[in-house]
Amino acid sequence: MLAMFSTFPIDKGPALGKDVAKVIDLIDKSGLDYQTTAMGTLLEGDWDEVMDLIKKCHLKLRESSKRVNTRITIDDLEGAKGRLKGKVVDIEKIIGRKVKK
Amino acid sequence: MLAMFSTFPIDKGPALGKDVAKVIDLIDKSGLDYQTTAMGTLLEGDWDEVMDLIKKCHLKLRESSKRVNTRITIDDLEGAKGRLKGKVVDIEKIIGRKVKK
Amino acid sequence: MLAMFSTFPIDKGPALGKDVAKVIDLIDKSGLDYQTTAMGTLLEGDWDEVMDLIKKCHLKLRESSKRVNTRITIDDLEGAKGRLKGKVVDIEKIIGRKVKK
Amino acid sequence: MLAMFSTFPIDKGPALGKDVAKVIDLIDKSGLDYQTTAMGTLLEGDWDEVMDLIKKCHLKLRESSKRVNTRITIDDLEGAKGRLKGKVVDIEKIIGRKVKK
Repeated sequence: MLAMFSTFPIDKGPALGKDVAKVIDLIDKSGLDYQTTAMGTLLEGDWDEVMDLIKKCHLKLRESSKRVNTRITIDDLEGAKGRLKGKVVDIEKIIGRKVKK
Repeated sequence: MLAMFSTFPIDKGPALGKDVAKVIDLIDKSGLDYQTTAMGTLLEGDWDEVMDLIKKCHLKLRESSKRVNTRITIDDLEGAKGRLKGKVVDIEKIIGRKVKK
Repeated sequence: MLAMFSTFPIDKGPALGKDVAKVIDLIDKSGLDYQTTAMGTLLEGDWDEVMDLIKKCHLKLRESSKRVNTRITIDDLEGAKGRLKGKVVDIEKIIGRKVKK
Repeated sequence: MLAMFSTFPIDKGPALGKDVAKVIDLIDKSGLDYQTTAMGTLLEGDWDEVMDLIKKCHLKLRESSKRVNTRITIDDLEGAKGRLKGKVVDIEKIIGRKVKK
């Protein structure tokens, strides 16, 4: 399945870079396929591996924050694999030109 | 912690009542504190009990659907309990009047 | 259509009550049908009236915050009205018992 | 400000490519800076131009669907520009290595 998530502390001021970096570091080392964006990270994997990683990221931020906000969106399509990049490529085929990605 | 989630199939047509009812039935029998709304269900509990219940609901819908979309928002405030109703009551105290809930 | 939204500053510390109260006060005075919950506010109305109100709430918080996070979910079903409470009542009819709301 | 959004019909079966393509086509022609991902599209612009485009996309899908679900997340940081790619570059500087993007 595909997931998109973001997690951030709400008691650390307006600059979140250091906290987001801790999270991306964990994700990058996890072995799961992922994509970092300006609004959250996409993950591809099965339910348990995706959710275990998100929990780990959330708890990492809670170590130094009293209040953490985490959002997860899951798109679970039977039999779908390699969708992290594949979905956008499919859209480009339908439109007939490249789009920004 | 508090969570809000919604889960629904995207291949069953515009009427979702029967699928949503299956999910609410599972939640109601789970023993976790919850609140049903027109846009999703609020849960209060610790990470694992909340996420185990959401997984169960998601998989229930996947039994009869090829594609299920699930969204979760988590508000994890250290030491907070009884917030499902308590948060709105606190807001009413600040505003100084009752609001719709 | 139905919408659920939340808006909060991320640079004001872990306690959000005063900021949330400003938002609920605007909503309560707007005349739109709404429901306040511990995880956000549900609104019912057409696109423009819902979005204008959300913009007003977001900008209210930006007056005293450098960084505001706002999330909106829209469920737009043709011809649907009175769904703020009606959806949950329909679920109860399918399940055959009352649920927490 | 930065926004991430997704919009899809829930009454058209499990394959969403054609509908998503209509939306991406509108975004690509809008002139706003954007990034397409497997879980939604990121936009950068001011409130009105971002929201007008999202409304246009939502209504495009409603032309051929009875029920459309749209989700928007907004990260509004005072004075921030060029954050669509800049945020991830900043994270890489903090971590000290390239990440997947």
